Amino acid sequence: MGSSGQSGAGGSAPGLRRALEAAAHGVERMLEDVLPKPHGLQARVHEAMRYAIFAGGKRLRPFLVLQSAALFEVAGTGALRTAAAIEVLHTYSLVHDDLPSMDDDDLRRGQPTAHRAFDEATAVLAGDALLTIAFEILSHPATHASAEVRCRLVSRLAEAAGSNGMIGGQMIDMRAPNSSFGADEVVLLQRLKTGQLFEFACEAGAILAEAGAEHETRLRAYARDMGLVFQITDDLLDVTSTAEKTGKAVGKDQGAGKATLVSIMGVEGARQEARRIAARAVAGLDAYDSKAAALRELLPFLLERDA
Amino acid sequence: MGSSGQSGAGGSAPGLRRALEAAAHGVERMLEDVLPKPHGLQARVHEAMRYAIFAGGKRLRPFLVLQSAALFEVAGTGALRTAAAIEVLHTYSLVHDDLPSMDDDDLRRGQPTAHRAFDEATAVLAGDALLTIAFEILSHPATHASAEVRCRLVSRLAEAAGSNGMIGGQMIDMRAPNSSFGADEVVLLQRLKTGQLFEFACEAGAILAEAGAEHETRLRAYARDMGLVFQITDDLLDVTSTAEKTGKAVGKDQGAGKATLVSIMGVEGARQEARRIAARAVAGLDAYDSKAAALRELLPFLLERDA
Repeated sequence: MGSSGQSGAGGSAPGLRRALEAAAHGVERMLEDVLPKPHGLQARVHEAMRYAIFAGGKRLRPFLVLQSAALFEVAGTGALRTAAAIEVLHTYSLVHDDLPSMDDDDLRRGQPTAHRAFDEATAVLAGDALLTIAFEILSHPATHASAEVRCRLVSRLAEAAGSNGMIGGQMIDMRAPNSSFGADEVVLLQRLKTGQLFEFACEAGAILAEAGAEHETRLRAYARDMGLVFQITDDLLDVTSTAEKTGKAVGKDQGAGKATLVSIMGVEGARQEARRIAARAVAGLDAYDSKAAALRELLPFLLERDA
Repeated sequence: MGSSGQSGAGGSAPGLRRALEAAAHGVERMLEDVLPKPHGLQARVHEAMRYAIFAGGKRLRPFLVLQSAALFEVAGTGALRTAAAIEVLHTYSLVHDDLPSMDDDDLRRGQPTAHRAFDEATAVLAGDALLTIAFEILSHPATHASAEVRCRLVSRLAEAAGSNGMIGGQMIDMRAPNSSFGADEVVLLQRLKTGQLFEFACEAGAILAEAGAEHETRLRAYARDMGLVFQITDDLLDVTSTAEKTGKAVGKDQGAGKATLVSIMGVEGARQEARRIAARAVAGLDAYDSKAAALRELLPFLLERDA
């Protein structure tokens, strides 16, 4: 469900780097707070939840939440809790995607996947528990004073993550004969599998700020484009990078005969398409002036990433 | 996570039977409405969700929601949506519990389990999607006019189903050397694994009615006792019934060397304990007069069930 990609160091953009690091730091402190401490006879599931969450990751979705909230001068606990909710949901999707019956991956971020570090039953349960706690975090009064806002966050996250969102994308990816997919189908698959959660992450700032439908729509459009660039560069890395750099197996898509925009358009064609979409994403942020600096910088950063 | 038990025909109680049938009928119509129709490239996950939901089941949790709501004269869409949310959540727990890496069951309600009827990846995803849609249903404005109420439903369901609730119970059941468990630990395990969701189902009526903490506490106490009776009679059936009657494998707990209140107290001791707890559950409903008739009748019905 979640993207299999992990971008490491890449591009320049020191301001963006600082913003990414600040988001990672802030959300990790919040995750430490909201995840249960291992206790009781059920401690093993708590340990597996924490193992999956604290195995690293660049915390891109939390960054998107915090940056989209900052467009409306929303910061603090509510934004961090929302960021934490999206990150636990994203992490559940990685834990379940890695299972033997799904992508059967042994490595994630250079570490044993949850079912390898623990066992398969524990990984299923830890994923279930991470998914569940995402909604507990969002619905808690500490996330926003308005219950209407909290309900909208719950509702939109459930849609984005559900059978017509992220789970639907993973279903297509698992079962469809997607070596025969054309560009439209590949884009649809990715929009469901990874794009919807990006859309929610960017829209969340506008929801928290009660900024209105126009801002939500604009931020979803940015997220859609950003997600496509993210995916194309991930597919490019799958073709051009090494396992050492990415911390996971590479060449898997080619090996599995999966269609990607890279296999359809070629390496150069896909690179050009990514640049075109990135420019559109950046242009869509004009209304936010300097407040959107980090969201703008993200696009060239993704285009230039090498891991 | 969910109980493995299936009570079929048992006891007398024609009024209760009618109430159970009405609840099943009402919630099934609601489930038909709220579950996605199979469509798109992801149709397979929709089909698996529906397969698991419409495979039968007595809809005991929806009955508890509707009856607890009726204590406060709450009926209609909101109660039915809440009942549907609990049933999809319960069903997800069955789908995941049945997985090869968990209880590895081939039969559920006399039908092939989801991973046998489809495949393991689809069953994981369908379970995930059922869990996710439970929160989408509860957070939707159609469930209650007050967003505060909807948020409380989301929050309480997430707690009841999470790593310190149902999932925690399943974790204990999967991993702990529970052949050495004493009565306290067996009761704790069952309170987490099946009891918490029963508690939420009964409490939900009071939440929907905004009836206040006293009613919520009283209904949770009823649910706790009812859940214990449910579990003890399930364990008794595991020892005394046949696969033909229950529609699933029997004798599994004994075979696995699992401690139950039956293995600890003996068949007669467990029967007496169940009767004692059932009487306490019924007495706790005194405040609700005739409005609690069906909730009262449920206890002797459970005590006398033969499948």
